[in-house]
Amino acid sequence: MKSLNEMTASELSPLLAAGTVSTEDVARACLARIAERDPTVRVWAWIDPDQVIHAARELDKTPRKGPLHGIPVGVKDMIDTFDMPTQQNSPIYAGHWPNQDAACVATLRAQGALILGKTDTLEFAAGGRKALTRNPHDLTRTPGGSSSGSAAGVADFHVPLTLGTQTGGSTIRPGSFCGAYAMKPTWAAINREGAKIYSMTCDTIGLYSRSVADLELLCDAYGIVDDAPPRPVRLEGARIGVCRSPFWDKAEEGTHQALAQAAKRLAAAGAKVEDLELPAEFGGLGPAQLTIIAMEGKAAFLDLYRRRHELLHDEFRALVENRKKLSYADLRAAYDLAGRCRPVFDEIARGYDAIITPAAPGEAPLGLNTNGDPVFNRMWTLLHAPCVTVPGLTGPAGLPVGIQLVGPRFGDRQLLAAAAAVASVLDPALSAASAAKPRARARKAA
Amino acid sequence: MKSLNEMTASELSPLLAAGTVSTEDVARACLARIAERDPTVRVWAWIDPDQVIHAARELDKTPRKGPLHGIPVGVKDMIDTFDMPTQQNSPIYAGHWPNQDAACVATLRAQGALILGKTDTLEFAAGGRKALTRNPHDLTRTPGGSSSGSAAGVADFHVPLTLGTQTGGSTIRPGSFCGAYAMKPTWAAINREGAKIYSMTCDTIGLYSRSVADLELLCDAYGIVDDAPPRPVRLEGARIGVCRSPFWDKAEEGTHQALAQAAKRLAAAGAKVEDLELPAEFGGLGPAQLTIIAMEGKAAFLDLYRRRHELLHDEFRALVENRKKLSYADLRAAYDLAGRCRPVFDEIARGYDAIITPAAPGEAPLGLNTNGDPVFNRMWTLLHAPCVTVPGLTGPAGLPVGIQLVGPRFGDRQLLAAAAAVASVLDPALSAASAAKPRARARKAA
Repeated sequence: MKSLNEMTASELSPLLAAGTVSTEDVARACLARIAERDPTVRVWAWIDPDQVIHAARELDKTPRKGPLHGIPVGVKDMIDTFDMPTQQNSPIYAGHWPNQDAACVATLRAQGALILGKTDTLEFAAGGRKALTRNPHDLTRTPGGSSSGSAAGVADFHVPLTLGTQTGGSTIRPGSFCGAYAMKPTWAAINREGAKIYSMTCDTIGLYSRSVADLELLCDAYGIVDDAPPRPVRLEGARIGVCRSPFWDKAEEGTHQALAQAAKRLAAAGAKVEDLELPAEFGGLGPAQLTIIAMEGKAAFLDLYRRRHELLHDEFRALVENRKKLSYADLRAAYDLAGRCRPVFDEIARGYDAIITPAAPGEAPLGLNTNGDPVFNRMWTLLHAPCVTVPGLTGPAGLPVGIQLVGPRFGDRQLLAAAAAVASVLDPALSAASAAKPRARARKAA
Repeated sequence: MKSLNEMTASELSPLLAAGTVSTEDVARACLARIAERDPTVRVWAWIDPDQVIHAARELDKTPRKGPLHGIPVGVKDMIDTFDMPTQQNSPIYAGHWPNQDAACVATLRAQGALILGKTDTLEFAAGGRKALTRNPHDLTRTPGGSSSGSAAGVADFHVPLTLGTQTGGSTIRPGSFCGAYAMKPTWAAINREGAKIYSMTCDTIGLYSRSVADLELLCDAYGIVDDAPPRPVRLEGARIGVCRSPFWDKAEEGTHQALAQAAKRLAAAGAKVEDLELPAEFGGLGPAQLTIIAMEGKAAFLDLYRRRHELLHDEFRALVENRKKLSYADLRAAYDLAGRCRPVFDEIARGYDAIITPAAPGEAPLGLNTNGDPVFNRMWTLLHAPCVTVPGLTGPAGLPVGIQLVGPRFGDRQLLAAAAAVASVLDPALSAASAAKPRARARKAA
C-alpha cells in the first residue's frame, strides 16, 4: 500500500473527493517525507509547515473546486506567489515577497490546489548560482536544472505535482535525471505572467508529476486542448519515429542504451519503429537557441544590471554586455530559421503516432556545479513543440534515463496519449497495467 | 519661452544637470498643468502630488544618474509600480498595489527618472472598459487606446515622457490621434516583465515623447542599439517608400491628405518618393494578428476567468471561451505566415532610407466608446518591426494625423534617424530647425 505522499494526484483526488482522506492528511504525509529527506535532498527553497497545515485545513472546509482540490503543488522559486517569498536563488531577491500570484499559480489555486512551498532553482532559471538540490537517486549528482527542486521533489515523493519552467531544457532534462514525468507544453499555451523572464521566445511553464494521468489533470487545469480530442494510441501497429537528432554525437552510453531499449520494447509491443532523420537545416536550431537566449537575455537582465549591478552574478553581466559579441543579424537569422523549421517539424510529426528522442545526454552527471547539458532540448524548445519525459529506464550506473516524446505544436493532448502508450512499456510502476499485458496474456493463452 | 512642463526631456536634462532648475521645479510645473487640465482630459488613473514632490526632492538630493535624472515619466496603468497602485482599469484590480516595479519602470528609476503617476488605459490594455481619457485637442473624441492616458498626457503637456504598450496599435495610433511622438520598438527589445500579458507574440512596451531626441534618450536608457551606428538621414536624395499597405481601403480623408502631404513635403525637400507595394501575402497579416491575440488571449486571461469570473468583462470571457471558434490550426497558420513575412519585410525595408505608412485610418473618431481602428498597426506589430509616429499634420477637422515610419527588426536607431529627417518637414515645432532650411537659404542666396 502506497503512503499518501507516494500517491499521484490522480490517485489522491478520488480519496479526497470521497472524504476518505483529508487535505490535511495528505499535507502531513508530504511534510513528514520532507522532514525526513529534505535535509539531504534540499528540494525546498522555502516551506512553512504551519502555513501548509493551516491552508490544508481551510481547503478541507471549502466546497471542492475540482479534481485538484487539496492536491499539494510545489512551485519553482522564480514563479511569484503572494503568500510565500520568491527569491530567484539571487541575493538581490533574498527575502523578497511579491504580493501577487503568477498566473500559473493563481490558476491552480482557483481550482483548490494546495501550494506547498517553493522549490530551489538555478539563479533566475537562467545561469549563475546553482540550486542546492541533490539528485535523490545519488546525492553526489545533480538533479539537473534549472527546475532542480521541482524535479527532485516529485521524484523523491515530497509532493505529487510541481511547476517548473523551460527555456533550454530546464524541465525535460531534470525529469530525465530524477526519474519524473515532465512536460513542456506548446509555447504560450500556459500564461507565463509572474514568472521571471529570460527569453521571450523560449520561456515556457513546465509541469512535473509521477504519471501521465497527472499531466492530463494539469493540462485540464490550464485549459490545454488540441483541436480534436486525442486518438487513443495503441502500440500494436503504431508508427514510432526514433529521432536521434542532429546532436546524437553528444549522447552517452546511458542514452544510447535507453533509446535502443525503448525502441526494442515498443517493437516488441507491436509498434512499427523506424529511424526519423530531420532535415539538415535543423542542426542549426541548437546554436540558434543559444543566440536567441543570449540576445533576449541581454534585454531581460538590463534592469537588474542597472540597479543591482554588484549583486548580479557575472554571467548575467556578461549577457547584458553581450560579451559573446553576437549581432542582431545573428538574432534575426536565428528567429527566421526557427520560423522556417516550425511548420516543417509539425508536418513531419503528424506522420507518426509518437516520436521518441533523447531527453538528455545520459544519466545525471556527478557534482552539483553542473545542471547537465540541454543539447537535446534546445531545438524542441525553440520549435515551440510540446515535449514529455517518460521515466522508467536506467543507465550504466543504475540511475534514471528518461525518454523524450515530442509532437507538433498544439498537439499536447495527443502527445500525452502517445506518452501513456510509451510509458506502458517503460515505467515499471505500470507493469501490472502494461499495454504489454494483453500480449503476455495472449502468449499464455496460446 | 516654454514653461517647464512644455519642455521635452532633452531640453530639461541640461537645465537639471546645470542646476538651473530642480526636479521639484519640473514636477511642480507638471502638477500645475495636471491640476488645470486633468479634470477634463482625465489622463491619470492615479497620481499623488505630495508623493511626487517628495520623490522629486529626493532626486534633487541624489547624485545625478544620467540624462533622465529628474525627468518625469508617466506609466500606463497595466505596468506594475512598487509605490503606486496598478489597477488595470479592471474592478478586479481596484486598489491593487503590486510591491515590485515592472522591469521597464525599474530601468528608468535606476537612471533617476521621476515616476509621476499612472495613466489610464483600456482594461488590461486588451478590451472591455475604455479609459476615461479624452482627446486633448477635442474633448468629445477618443485619444485612441489602449495607451490612452500615456498619449494624451504627453500631448497635453502634463509630462514629457510616458510608457505605453502595443499589442495591435495601442502606442502608434494614440500617438497619431493626440499629436505625440510614439515608438513601438522591435519586439522583445525592452523587457516586458511586470506588464500585463495579452499576447506573447505581439505585446511590446511603447514610448511617448514630444521629440525624436526624447525617443533617442529612452532607447539609450533601454540599451536599444542597432548592429551599426545609424547613418544620418538627409532628405536630399533619400529614397522614401510610401506604403499605403494592404488595408488602404480603410483610410479616411485625414489619412489620404496626410500621406499625400508628407510625400509632397519630402519630395520638396529633395527625397525620391516612390510607392512601395508589399507582396500579396502581407494582406493576411492583419487577420493573422487577430487570430494570434484571440488564441493567446485565451491562455492569458484564463486565471482571471477561473478566479474572478463575475468581475471579468465579458469580452475576456469570450476570449477564454473561444467564442470565435478559432482553431489551433488557424493559430499555427497565423504564426507561420508571420514567420515567413518577417525576413521578407526586413529585406524590403533595407532598400529604403525611410518607409512612411498610415498610423491610423484618419483623425480621432468622435466619442469615448471607441479607441479607433488598429487596422494600420496590426501588421507591423506582428512583423515585430519597429514603428514610430511622427506628428505635425492635421486632418479635415483640424485634428492631428500622424505619419507612421516602419523599419526592419533591430533597426530601431536607424528608424529614429529617419524619423528625425521626416519630422523636420512635418513638425511645425521644428520649422525653425527644419531640414528644408538649408534649401530655403540656398534659394534665397540664389
